[in-house]
Formats: sequence, C-alpha cells, structure tokens
Amino acid sequence: MSTIDTGLDPHPTGAAAAFAAAHSASHPLKLYGSWFCPFVQRAWIVLAEKKIPHQYIEINPYKKEAGFMALNPRGLVPTLKKKTKALYESTVVCEYLDERYVGGDEGRLMPEEDVYERARCRLWSNHIVTRIVPGFYRLLQHTEDKGYPIEEARAELLKGLREFAGEMVDQSPDPEGPWFLGSKFSLVDAMLAPWAKRLFLIDHYKPGGVGIPKKGKRGDDEAVWERWYRWFDAVVERESVKATWSDEEMYIKAYKRYAEDKTQSEVGQATRKGRGLP
Amino acid sequence: MSTIDTGLDPHPTGAAAAFAAAHSASHPLKLYGSWFCPFVQRAWIVLAEKKIPHQYIEINPYKKEAGFMALNPRGLVPTLKKKTKALYESTVVCEYLDERYVGGDEGRLMPEEDVYERARCRLWSNHIVTRIVPGFYRLLQHTEDKGYPIEEARAELLKGLREFAGEMVDQSPDPEGPWFLGSKFSLVDAMLAPWAKRLFLIDHYKPGGVGIPKKGKRGDDEAVWERWYRWFDAVVERESVKATWSDEEMYIKAYKRYAEDKTQSEVGQATRKGRGLP
Repeated sequence: MSTIDTGLDPHPTGAAAAFAAAHSASHPLKLYGSWFCPFVQRAWIVLAEKKIPHQYIEINPYKKEAGFMALNPRGLVPTLKKKTKALYESTVVCEYLDERYVGGDEGRLMPEEDVYERARCRLWSNHIVTRIVPGFYRLLQHTEDKGYPIEEARAELLKGLREFAGEMVDQSPDPEGPWFLGSKFSLVDAMLAPWAKRLFLIDHYKPGGVGIPKKGKRGDDEAVWERWYRWFDAVVERESVKATWSDEEMYIKAYKRYAEDKTQSEVGQATRKGRGLP
Repeated sequence: MSTIDTGLDPHPTGAAAAFAAAHSASHPLKLYGSWFCPFVQRAWIVLAEKKIPHQYIEINPYKKEAGFMALNPRGLVPTLKKKTKALYESTVVCEYLDERYVGGDEGRLMPEEDVYERARCRLWSNHIVTRIVPGFYRLLQHTEDKGYPIEEARAELLKGLREFAGEMVDQSPDPEGPWFLGSKFSLVDAMLAPWAKRLFLIDHYKPGGVGIPKKGKRGDDEAVWERWYRWFDAVVERESVKATWSDEEMYIKAYKRYAEDKTQSEVGQATRKGRGLP
C-alpha cells in the first residue's frame, strides 16, 4: 500500500466538522469514516436524516493498521460496530440504518407499503452503483495517456445521469420532484447525493467538465435535463447533505490525485485497471 | 450484436422442461428467461421455493427484437411483468418476490425479525455478486492468450469461495449448516446456487479445474472447505435447484463459447474486457 494518499487532511472542516464534533462522544453505534469519502457520506447522510444517535470516528482509510479495518476489506466503505457486530458496504449499511431506526422527519427512507416501489428504488440504487459511480471515476481519472478520448468517459457518465433523470420524468409518482420519489426524500437520493456534490470536481479538473447540454440545446432531452437540475438543486441544498460536507477547497485538494490518476484508493485503482469497483 | 450465440438450443430439457411446461399457461406474473442463464435461474429458484404461480416464457437473450427487452438493458437478467410493471436485475427481482409472496415451506427467504442478520445476508449476496460470480467467468473464460496465468484467475475464484465458506464457519447461527443461515434455506443460498451447479463446467473445460484443495492438504482450511462441501452437496440437491436444471450435456454445449472466450453475452464481453459485470 503506497503512502501517496496519506497526506490527506485528517479532519473534516466546515459544517461536517461541527456535525462530527456533535457526535464525538462515545456511543455503541460507531461510524468509522473519512470526511472526503462519498461512500461514508452516504451513511452519514442517513444518520443525519434519521437523527440517529451515534459516534463518528474519523479515520484515514489508507492506513489499515486499525483493528476494525480487518472487518472492512474495501477500504473506503464505512464500518459500523454495534456491540461486536460490524457492517460494511455503504448500500447495505444505509438500508440497515433505515430498517433499524425509525426516527427523522421523513420516517422510513424506503417505501414501506408498496413492494414494487421498494424494488424500483433498489433497481435505481443499483443503477447508481453500477453506472453513475463508475462513470464518475472514469471521467475524473481520465488522463491524456488513456487509450480512449475523454469524450468516451464523459458520454458514459452523461448516459448514466440521463437515464436516472429519465426515470424520474417517466415513473415518479410526482414527476415535478424534486426527489426521486417526488415529494419524499428517499434512500435513492442519499445514494447519489455524495457524487452530485462532487460533480464540481470534474468541472474543476477536466476540460469540458461534466458537459450536461445547455438549455435550448438538448433536443428531445429538455424535460429530462430540467428534471435533473430540479433534483440536483434540491439535493445539494438538503440539510443532511450540507451537514456532512466539508469546505469545498478541501475536496479540490483531496481529489487532485484522482484527477491526475495517481490515487492509491481501492476505487481509484480499480478504475485505473478498468476493473469493476470493489 | 453478433449472432454467434443464437445457435443455442431454444428450450429447457430434463427437469427444467417439466417445470417450464407446468408454468406455461398465461399468468399476469411472467418470467422471461433462458434455460441456461444462471441469473434467470436465481429468480426461477425463488419462484419454485415459494411455489409462486407464474408463467415462464423461454426467450433467447441474444435476440433483442422482443418488445419487453427494451425494459431489460442487461440481457441475461430476467424481466418480470406484472400488469404493466417490469423488473430486472436478478438480486432485485428475487428480493421483490420474497417480500411480495409469503408461500413455500420456508416462508420468507430473508430474515424477518433480525435486522442485522438481514443486512448480513445482503452483505454476502453482495460478496457473491462482486467476487464469486466475476471470478467464475474470469476462470471459465481464461485462455492461453490472456496476459496472466490461469492460476491467477483460479486463485481469485477460490478466494471468493473460501471467504464465503469461512463466513459460514464463523458466523452462522448453526455452523453445521448446511445452509448459509444454518438449518434454514435463504436468499443467499439461492443467489449462489446457479453458479454452484455450473462449477462442473470449469472442471470440464479448464486444466486444473476449480482446484479446491483435497482433504488433508488444506492446512488451516480443513474446516472451511468441509463447510463448503456441506453447503455445496446440499444446494445441488435442493428440490428448487434441481427443478430448474436442464440436462447436464446441454450446459456443456451452451458454455463451450464461454470456455473459448467467444461468447457475445454481455457478461462474457465485460469479463473479456476486464470491466465490471453489467
């Protein structure tokens, strides 16, 4: 394991610093996380949404000496301990938290009554996991020496986002939004929120940026991209998302190694090799 | 889309033919599947386990002219239609079926009361999806002209299987088994069963085969591999698994193109490119 990424600033800043401080007292439910990690932010958002009492413990995911990391073979994914029980995999952790704790303004973040709607939410969480997130890293880590042009990586990410927005136009109970399920914030929104917040990094580091077509130049996709921005504008302003967000310049600093394709993170390395994400 | 794989025998044989025939009458719940496809078999096993009334419709996944395939961008994954509602992704389909229908000897195939145990099942279903299944195709599709030795692919699959068996030794409520959860068959078993049934194809086509170490030559892993075989022997004889299985020689024929790494299936192509499975 290279130490190239261990120079990361070791603490959250801004709103996330305040949220972490408010949850620093010992508690049997512990979230081991890193302030810059989007997989951790998923669980953090759910903890915030549902106002779940917990203890946040900042760790450096690239330093694996800590005992509990033996329980977490995927580095960037949060480990939760409750008594001696541990969980990893952000999607599994988030669904666990939603099923285990009722609290929060929204109650359950997955549809409770409608089994089909619940399955549809899992389908689109899966779309985020297998399409949008890998597309994000492929574009962010694209460099000139890759065997394919940046347009290919951009098209892949845009396709994933467009399909997600298209589903909201076609299938949401309330196609006005702003959320995936219409007026109700759900786990699907929490699954994508951390990467929505990080899209600005692609605009910052990559020529042409994310490249969502401008208004009036979207052909048949005007309604789809309008719906995307309605969701995007709402999610980046969501209280739980802002509460778990550090200062913007810290992300710019932290993701420089991704943009140069030099990160040693597991996700970054898998992307570099063109393998599926771990 | 090449037509190289369209020469597949178009119908199930053996026990699966009988099961398909018994579910050929029109029914609002339709499973569109291919007899040889392990992703489809997952859903088929759950339908059989829970004795869910349904209609099975055999399709050729490589021919996409059928209208409903527009709803199924991933080729090999079953599409379920209920009235106008469709689902794809085998893991999502199976969890939906389990939540929607109570029937069968086992009742629910996911733990109902214990939220943590339910999360642990999802964690290990995820292990099957992201570790064991890709490892299966990497080994089955390994050819001499790959840039790495077959031992590398074999080690990857064995690692995935060993970790799964190790979890059963360490964490199952009843470490004697035979199932993942001990005495109760669960969705985790159904998720892996189709590939357990297909492991013989690797022994048939690849020098050295799956390569599970022989008894007495397993060092510290004796108990782990014993537990693996206890699970394996039970799952290949499970009624629902046998009922959805065609004649063995038909799989040998169908998977020849995988073994030669010439399949045009989406899973096969992704494996060839070293990408994550679609």
